Amino acid sequence: MSDSQKLVRIVLRYEGTEYCGWQVQPGAVSVQEVLEKAFESMTGIKARCLAASRTDAGVHAWHQEVCLPNQTRHEPDALLRGLNFHLPDDVVVISARWAEDGFNPRRDAVGKHYRYTIHNAQYPPVFSRNTCWHLRYHLDLSAMNRACRILTGEHDFSSFRGAKCEAASPIRTIDHMSCTRSGDKVLFDVFGKSFLKQMVRNILGTLVDVGRRRWSPEDVSAILEGKDRRLAGQTAPAKGLCLMKIFYDVESYNASM
Amino acid sequence: MSDSQKLVRIVLRYEGTEYCGWQVQPGAVSVQEVLEKAFESMTGIKARCLAASRTDAGVHAWHQEVCLPNQTRHEPDALLRGLNFHLPDDVVVISARWAEDGFNPRRDAVGKHYRYTIHNAQYPPVFSRNTCWHLRYHLDLSAMNRACRILTGEHDFSSFRGAKCEAASPIRTIDHMSCTRSGDKVLFDVFGKSFLKQMVRNILGTLVDVGRRRWSPEDVSAILEGKDRRLAGQTAPAKGLCLMKIFYDVESYNASM
Repeated sequence: MSDSQKLVRIVLRYEGTEYCGWQVQPGAVSVQEVLEKAFESMTGIKARCLAASRTDAGVHAWHQEVCLPNQTRHEPDALLRGLNFHLPDDVVVISARWAEDGFNPRRDAVGKHYRYTIHNAQYPPVFSRNTCWHLRYHLDLSAMNRACRILTGEHDFSSFRGAKCEAASPIRTIDHMSCTRSGDKVLFDVFGKSFLKQMVRNILGTLVDVGRRRWSPEDVSAILEGKDRRLAGQTAPAKGLCLMKIFYDVESYNASM
Repeated sequence: MSDSQKLVRIVLRYEGTEYCGWQVQPGAVSVQEVLEKAFESMTGIKARCLAASRTDAGVHAWHQEVCLPNQTRHEPDALLRGLNFHLPDDVVVISARWAEDGFNPRRDAVGKHYRYTIHNAQYPPVFSRNTCWHLRYHLDLSAMNRACRILTGEHDFSSFRGAKCEAASPIRTIDHMSCTRSGDKVLFDVFGKSFLKQMVRNILGTLVDVGRRRWSPEDVSAILEGKDRRLAGQTAPAKGLCLMKIFYDVESYNASM
């Protein structure tokens, strides 16, 4: 993407249920592909989009940030209407505006907020059945939050790294992490600049074992120090995970945690 | 249903999208039918359920109250688990308990709360696309709330009565009605003991015409006094309507408004 091209910044919301994730993959439908196809249907021009976060298969986004090189005469407002006309009903452009010169949604991000939603009740979820993980047993949030404090900060997260992770280093920093109860839901919020593949879902799978008292918060310390994926809990299902927001400004990032 | 039968009180939650409404109808799938079939699959016994409110096709319920004659040895807790195992994923039993002697969920209700949700934004809804009506134009909530106050109280609601309404009298009492904005949603809450067929959706369709300034709140006075369905606005789509709660206690009903 050359800097001389006019870039449009798009905030995208999607339900990931039907998609293989953000990134284009052969033999599967990705969110990137349906967005690029919508742009081509609208303008006749092929363009390659860049997203702040490559969400995995089945993961949702409330506010994904996407950059779209726009060689057409369409203003951002017209793009919003036109793209939404051509997009399927589980992918929607929330806003569109001109990007500042040289803006890169991935490189320029200062922080990301992910939320994992657990439906914690005897009965299954109805309206949120595609967007949460149903767990019948009661979760001890106090124990889970103690484990959250152990994992917060800069660590070697090898124990929570997905098998297909291609990152050069397993060191990451979690800026904030907490669990809260809201009605029949348990919300797990995590903030950081970047995460290893499946790291959030692997951490949550482990926290759930703490919440059901299979493990103590101290066991999580040992799991982290063991630097071995086999020590930690299961990978929580993708459908409970949602990319909530990408931050480009340190002040608003810090204020949101 | 004889008084000597043991009755179980069930709170049911459902997404109405795929159903012809609560009530059994030939040639269509109703919520009542799937609940009765789940009971039969679980127990081998046919039973006829009674609901507090016969929701229309496509209308949802957050808390519908249902009575189920239980001739089995299953305790309510076991019924909850068994019914949820056999029910489709868009219909769920939230709670089950023994009913008081002679309890009738329809007759004994002292009030009902319905909510209509409008997605009021330039972009369409994603996660709530089955449960709200998308309106792009900005709604003037102050004008809509003035119209709400005109319609509150006891009136002849002939102008808001669905064509197929079989009620003996068009007189109904609205105990409370208001519109509030919450993010990109407009919530229309209405409380009353009973409503005419499609009355809530016909009122909302008319309020929306006030919100977009096609009509003034005073025009709504004239529509009400005209007692003619042709004077009022369109019937709002079913998918935005949800039965929120049935009240059996005057104090908690009054406190909720």
